[in-house]
Amino acid sequence: MNGFKNQVTGIKIAYIGGGSTIWGRQLMSDLALYPDMAGIVKLYDLDYQAAYDNQIIGNKLLERFDVKGKWIYEAVHTLEEALLDANFVIISILPGTFNEMKSDVHCPEKYGIYQSVGDTVGPGGLMRALRTIPIFVEFAQQIKKHAPEAWVLNHTNPLTLCIRTLYEVFPEIKAFGCCNEVFKTRRLMITMLESLKSINGITTNEIYTNVLGINHFTWIDQASYKGMNLIPIYQQFVDQYYESGFVEPGEKNWLNDTFKDANRVKFDLFRNYGLIAAASDRHLAEFLPPWYLKNPEIVSTWKFRLTTVNWRVEDKKDSMDKSRRLVNGDEELKLVPSDGDGILMIRALLGLGDLITNVNLPNQGQMNDFPFGPVVETNAVFSNNCVRPIVTGKVPLDLQSLIMRHILNQETLLKASLTKDKEMAFHAFINDPLVTLDMVQARELFNEMLLNMKCYLHGWNL
Amino acid sequence: MNGFKNQVTGIKIAYIGGGSTIWGRQLMSDLALYPDMAGIVKLYDLDYQAAYDNQIIGNKLLERFDVKGKWIYEAVHTLEEALLDANFVIISILPGTFNEMKSDVHCPEKYGIYQSVGDTVGPGGLMRALRTIPIFVEFAQQIKKHAPEAWVLNHTNPLTLCIRTLYEVFPEIKAFGCCNEVFKTRRLMITMLESLKSINGITTNEIYTNVLGINHFTWIDQASYKGMNLIPIYQQFVDQYYESGFVEPGEKNWLNDTFKDANRVKFDLFRNYGLIAAASDRHLAEFLPPWYLKNPEIVSTWKFRLTTVNWRVEDKKDSMDKSRRLVNGDEELKLVPSDGDGILMIRALLGLGDLITNVNLPNQGQMNDFPFGPVVETNAVFSNNCVRPIVTGKVPLDLQSLIMRHILNQETLLKASLTKDKEMAFHAFINDPLVTLDMVQARELFNEMLLNMKCYLHGWNL
Amino acid sequence: MNGFKNQVTGIKIAYIGGGSTIWGRQLMSDLALYPDMAGIVKLYDLDYQAAYDNQIIGNKLLERFDVKGKWIYEAVHTLEEALLDANFVIISILPGTFNEMKSDVHCPEKYGIYQSVGDTVGPGGLMRALRTIPIFVEFAQQIKKHAPEAWVLNHTNPLTLCIRTLYEVFPEIKAFGCCNEVFKTRRLMITMLESLKSINGITTNEIYTNVLGINHFTWIDQASYKGMNLIPIYQQFVDQYYESGFVEPGEKNWLNDTFKDANRVKFDLFRNYGLIAAASDRHLAEFLPPWYLKNPEIVSTWKFRLTTVNWRVEDKKDSMDKSRRLVNGDEELKLVPSDGDGILMIRALLGLGDLITNVNLPNQGQMNDFPFGPVVETNAVFSNNCVRPIVTGKVPLDLQSLIMRHILNQETLLKASLTKDKEMAFHAFINDPLVTLDMVQARELFNEMLLNMKCYLHGWNL
Amino acid sequence: MNGFKNQVTGIKIAYIGGGSTIWGRQLMSDLALYPDMAGIVKLYDLDYQAAYDNQIIGNKLLERFDVKGKWIYEAVHTLEEALLDANFVIISILPGTFNEMKSDVHCPEKYGIYQSVGDTVGPGGLMRALRTIPIFVEFAQQIKKHAPEAWVLNHTNPLTLCIRTLYEVFPEIKAFGCCNEVFKTRRLMITMLESLKSINGITTNEIYTNVLGINHFTWIDQASYKGMNLIPIYQQFVDQYYESGFVEPGEKNWLNDTFKDANRVKFDLFRNYGLIAAASDRHLAEFLPPWYLKNPEIVSTWKFRLTTVNWRVEDKKDSMDKSRRLVNGDEELKLVPSDGDGILMIRALLGLGDLITNVNLPNQGQMNDFPFGPVVETNAVFSNNCVRPIVTGKVPLDLQSLIMRHILNQETLLKASLTKDKEMAFHAFINDPLVTLDMVQARELFNEMLLNMKCYLHGWNL
Repeated sequence: MNGFKNQVTGIKIAYIGGGSTIWGRQLMSDLALYPDMAGIVKLYDLDYQAAYDNQIIGNKLLERFDVKGKWIYEAVHTLEEALLDANFVIISILPGTFNEMKSDVHCPEKYGIYQSVGDTVGPGGLMRALRTIPIFVEFAQQIKKHAPEAWVLNHTNPLTLCIRTLYEVFPEIKAFGCCNEVFKTRRLMITMLESLKSINGITTNEIYTNVLGINHFTWIDQASYKGMNLIPIYQQFVDQYYESGFVEPGEKNWLNDTFKDANRVKFDLFRNYGLIAAASDRHLAEFLPPWYLKNPEIVSTWKFRLTTVNWRVEDKKDSMDKSRRLVNGDEELKLVPSDGDGILMIRALLGLGDLITNVNLPNQGQMNDFPFGPVVETNAVFSNNCVRPIVTGKVPLDLQSLIMRHILNQETLLKASLTKDKEMAFHAFINDPLVTLDMVQARELFNEMLLNMKCYLHGWNL
Repeated sequence: MNGFKNQVTGIKIAYIGGGSTIWGRQLMSDLALYPDMAGIVKLYDLDYQAAYDNQIIGNKLLERFDVKGKWIYEAVHTLEEALLDANFVIISILPGTFNEMKSDVHCPEKYGIYQSVGDTVGPGGLMRALRTIPIFVEFAQQIKKHAPEAWVLNHTNPLTLCIRTLYEVFPEIKAFGCCNEVFKTRRLMITMLESLKSINGITTNEIYTNVLGINHFTWIDQASYKGMNLIPIYQQFVDQYYESGFVEPGEKNWLNDTFKDANRVKFDLFRNYGLIAAASDRHLAEFLPPWYLKNPEIVSTWKFRLTTVNWRVEDKKDSMDKSRRLVNGDEELKLVPSDGDGILMIRALLGLGDLITNVNLPNQGQMNDFPFGPVVETNAVFSNNCVRPIVTGKVPLDLQSLIMRHILNQETLLKASLTKDKEMAFHAFINDPLVTLDMVQARELFNEMLLNMKCYLHGWNL
Repeated sequence: MNGFKNQVTGIKIAYIGGGSTIWGRQLMSDLALYPDMAGIVKLYDLDYQAAYDNQIIGNKLLERFDVKGKWIYEAVHTLEEALLDANFVIISILPGTFNEMKSDVHCPEKYGIYQSVGDTVGPGGLMRALRTIPIFVEFAQQIKKHAPEAWVLNHTNPLTLCIRTLYEVFPEIKAFGCCNEVFKTRRLMITMLESLKSINGITTNEIYTNVLGINHFTWIDQASYKGMNLIPIYQQFVDQYYESGFVEPGEKNWLNDTFKDANRVKFDLFRNYGLIAAASDRHLAEFLPPWYLKNPEIVSTWKFRLTTVNWRVEDKKDSMDKSRRLVNGDEELKLVPSDGDGILMIRALLGLGDLITNVNLPNQGQMNDFPFGPVVETNAVFSNNCVRPIVTGKVPLDLQSLIMRHILNQETLLKASLTKDKEMAFHAFINDPLVTLDMVQARELFNEMLLNMKCYLHGWNL
Repeated sequence: MNGFKNQVTGIKIAYIGGGSTIWGRQLMSDLALYPDMAGIVKLYDLDYQAAYDNQIIGNKLLERFDVKGKWIYEAVHTLEEALLDANFVIISILPGTFNEMKSDVHCPEKYGIYQSVGDTVGPGGLMRALRTIPIFVEFAQQIKKHAPEAWVLNHTNPLTLCIRTLYEVFPEIKAFGCCNEVFKTRRLMITMLESLKSINGITTNEIYTNVLGINHFTWIDQASYKGMNLIPIYQQFVDQYYESGFVEPGEKNWLNDTFKDANRVKFDLFRNYGLIAAASDRHLAEFLPPWYLKNPEIVSTWKFRLTTVNWRVEDKKDSMDKSRRLVNGDEELKLVPSDGDGILMIRALLGLGDLITNVNLPNQGQMNDFPFGPVVETNAVFSNNCVRPIVTGKVPLDLQSLIMRHILNQETLLKASLTKDKEMAFHAFINDPLVTLDMVQARELFNEMLLNMKCYLHGWNL
């Protein structure tokens, strides 16, 4: 890697899960937009063909006049090949298949437990964690061996436990978790300012927010645009749209798009706890007792939807069809900046501009009301070859309690996974707020879900 | 107070709630049994007559030949009179009347929430706390003013929050909470050893246990009798009696006595978490999601009972009848050593014999997995004018999680009470494991319960 | 205070020590340079005349065409008048007179203890702290009463203990300490890059440094300019100039200017500890055993000088002469940006541009190897109405030890001062690294120095 | 190992340094005095002959009628043989020979640094640590391999770092450090009570002391005999004997015995810090700047002596002559209880009687003003198969500072030793309070001392 006159060339990126359709194209697009970085992206995926497709799609960009950043894409057959001498490692994998996802999301429904996503917490999130942790143990070991100095950027869910596992196995790793939910909340505030104050043309980086919490259960206790305190404006916003909900103009409605919501959960949490919840309603609802997820009718009144796995299957199909067209040259990759700060983080680490943004890192003082070690989401400063979290200040006690429950539960689950301790995993399971079953039913569901993914649980005594 | 040749005379005890029938007679009996202590007990009670009755009952002991400890009892009209120059302050009060207790226990039943005691956690325990904390604020202020050097021993529930309040208001106070639930668990182990190992004649102080947790949700991770490790024996005990439950021979059965249980909850928790739960089943069940308290039928299968307030009313009547007989001389007070280490704690603090036993104190390092400040229950060493907690060692993560939830909830409730913040109190309420309602119902119940005791909530905006 | 279209008007600044010559003119100059802020500065000083002089000098700026920022200056007679409704409080006072300073610096010389500054640590710094702390107790109480929401920016030394005192008395205060020593170190790196790498035109804000430690004993463990790691370059710099020292071209030499040094102490500390010490040699040397301050000859070999108080008297006279000329209109105030980030901090707090810079704040997690509460110096993010420290990462153990010694000593001194405990103050005194006397001599010197400033020690039993 | 009817037989003790003369005979004597324990002691020593001598001496006891405890002694050739299946491991070794000890104690004298012992801190103690730590690394590895469940009791100095090393290498080890200095302080209090209060017949276990600090720099802030507070009596004791010093009646005088002192340092520290220093003056003086060790004349005025290594050589010779006589049967081993609680600790761990006494363990909450991990000395409860430290309460800030300096210095030294980092070791060296040299001289002395023991520093770059 060479830095010269504000340009960095020869950058080597290892992309684990390099066959990803959406995340993959996003990265290509992001890299294409900057003229001051160049290098190679090694694409590694269990599905080599998917990685190879991305190689083709990516390399087509080299010839396009509108592409400023010149990158070579190369699908590789082994993790080791990808990692060797990497400066950055990007991870976005799908742990398991849609079959396991079906079990995650739909098995609990038989017991009256509804989940809107099922990839972070709740019975589905916990199961997904149990099959993901061993994969990340392997990643950590390989990174330690082949790319110990690389910066590791993970997108995979459950994001908190993925990062936590990397640090548990290789404490010196330079890894962090990157998620665009808070980014979207900043964008919501821009819309709010347009709508309520008729201020236009604000960019996300002009919205300063103090971020705290854990991934997908993240909160903002201070927000400003220039000298303007946004909290009272948000209060007014909530008062105006509490009942109706708020849908961004021009956006698909939550009725038409499984991924959309009307921010009603967010508004209700603000009324209750006084802080701005900074994730989509679909994620937030899963961290709480079934206040918003009691049953599909209740979900409707809060104006968001349960994701079905069938929907995901369709969605994936669309995404792969698009890949096919891109490979064949029937369609050209559109270059649009991504909905998050991932590329800016990479740039800052290369010395191409400091950045303050939210990120997931082990707690080392930034949230001093919480134990050190577990992964939390707060702001951090990204600068040349370093990321340093920013101290959040005090978290209100009632919120602390909600967050701590998940932190300890995730620590319990991690330990259970590393020691293959089924009983301890069950204790994390029954302590999840969405699991309101009695012990007998809880055990039944737990066992069924474990068995559904037993091929990922090597060495467990099931 | 004078210490001379292993005797201490001139001890002054202030008894707040000095009209208590059961706790009052217990103290008299305990004091009567030791020849090496003497002094005066000032009895203060909102119900002066009850205190005066105890004065009469207590002073009758002076004339009895079988009484070794000579104490004068004097009912006083003000807290100040009781506290002035006190060496010890004992607190055992009933915060509110049976009316409030009825609300605590029976209101939630309308919403399908069943409580076996309702004085510690659960909706009832939380309400009780909200009316007790202001009383203890007052106690702390008065003790700071009139008896800042006194040792303060509290029996009142919710015990954790009572002690916590005292320290919050007067951080230099020398207060601790004393409860006999762990003591009873040590006695259960004696019975176990008699039953399984045919060892007889063991005394409670020969059973060494490592105690950790919070009051009424206390745990033992190490137990021994001389060189014998009791954990595997307890395992065997659980295996033998898991289904049937175990009732101590000669004891009233749980079917006949509201206060009894068959240890089935304890046994189930041991099977799950591997530690010995050291409180009665009735208390333990309330700290958990409704695994054991889902409905009265489930409660029956676990072989314990829900306490009705009517039962308490009857019980109180019996107890007062007995007082009447004792005052009139129709009955003589029986001298039996108490079911707990309270009197031994007092003796140790006077330099009359060091003692290791469990006690409730602010965490100052003894449970280093938990925040410092909140009150926890662990072993401590009592010696001349000092109590020092013993470090417990690590708490298993899954258990940590269950305990931490209540610790943070209690801290939330304390803050809500001190700042009269109804919203924050509600957040503690909905975060209690027994409150499995949706937000609307939860708020309804919460409001109703608050209104039922509004006369105790001065300055609240209800 | 009104914010509108990126301008803020109606700002009210209370300047305590508003008769300061150098700091006062610096503030005027800084405020004059920005067109987007306006308001009033209330000048309060024990020496009203000096404040009034600054009023005259400041208000002359209103008429000048080259002045962009329009501010009114008004000398006031009481602290209360200054503080009322202030948005910002700036403190730069001289605690005591040159007489006490003479005692601070020159008394210890009789015992063979040499100090290069005598205002932070060492016997002189400790004495200065003992007379400054009570003044800051008063400031904190007044700020709590009259301007509890104001941002308080302190320049007074000993800076750490001044800030620490403010927080001890009024924990909710929004105060921080601002010192330009680290700024100068960033400038040294710019010179280094010009000299070694022929890179010109770098601004201080382009040098990113990770700052840790305590004021005047501050360290940098990571430094970069864009993508360039500056640590190996600094290594080369030290190697080249270790023996000769390095004097910035065009600067006065350490031989001619008491305040200058040749960075030899800094270079030696880098060789020893591997981190860049980020304060002037004169300050650094005082935090260590007399390695560099054993006697005036040794000081010379390290190429810095002992400040005499006579020199300060002369310097002050020059500065006051200049004030006279400015008041009389014989000279015009030159507008030059200040040598530090103070004005940028104020701007950021007003929402006029986020800023990352070093600052002195109570440790709340930013240096997690150290106790929470004591004031440390690290980076922080300044944004609209908030300052949040950045977590530094681990401090090497050998350096930790050197820093911790002063932290605990300063805590000891604070407690001694607040409780007027002479014995405890003495223990801080004999634990200072420069105090290498035996107990008898140490006590003699300590008593003498205390007596020399007894008029500042109200209520002490001397 | 079998426990039956309050007897434990089949105990296996591994004695590392099993050729020790004094510690060895002490153990034999202690074991001989208790009828309820029996087993085998495996003696391992680099000097096999010395271990074999102890085998002979120990086995002679089997035939004596006055010996109650029946133990077999067996010298073994390898550490592994000793450790295999051990229930207890006792370590008392001499790291190096008298040659290294000469360097430790006498080299610094050339630079004007005087040490009274030279085995704990000071230049000598630090050097001794550097050659001892690698040995304990080896011990920890072997114990982990061959006796991971054994209780490890170490007497070797520097005791703190020996224990700390064991835990660093094998965190699950059940090790603690045992030293009789506090025991002697309890005995001093008994003498004090005899002398001042004419109370006789007190046993050491009746003196309750609250112990805190680090080994050889241990303090008592609360002491009582039954209900009697001993602190004011100690005050009176100090006032009476401050100038003359106090020598226990019948004891050898400090003038005649290198190991004796007159408690003057202890008395002076009490006057200064208000706590009772609980180690011999010879040890205490070394933890402080050269207040008491400036030069031999000053040492004399404080009425203690510098130990010469020649004296140790003589002493060792006497001790070995005695061994010879014991082996040959020319003399019979006298059975006297040892001057410390080591044997009672072993008994308690076997379930033969709980014990509260002081012990050296990693800080896990017992001294919450200090970092967790480093080894501290406090009280602990020993009971069946467990040791749990007792929380000490707050340490006064001025004392905290003195203790923390050594704790961090020892951590620095440990890290230096484990990573063979000469520069870091040097930083611990120059931060020792007794090292008051300038950097040049300090480095000279440091290098010389390192070279004197280079054969113990495998892999160092000297």
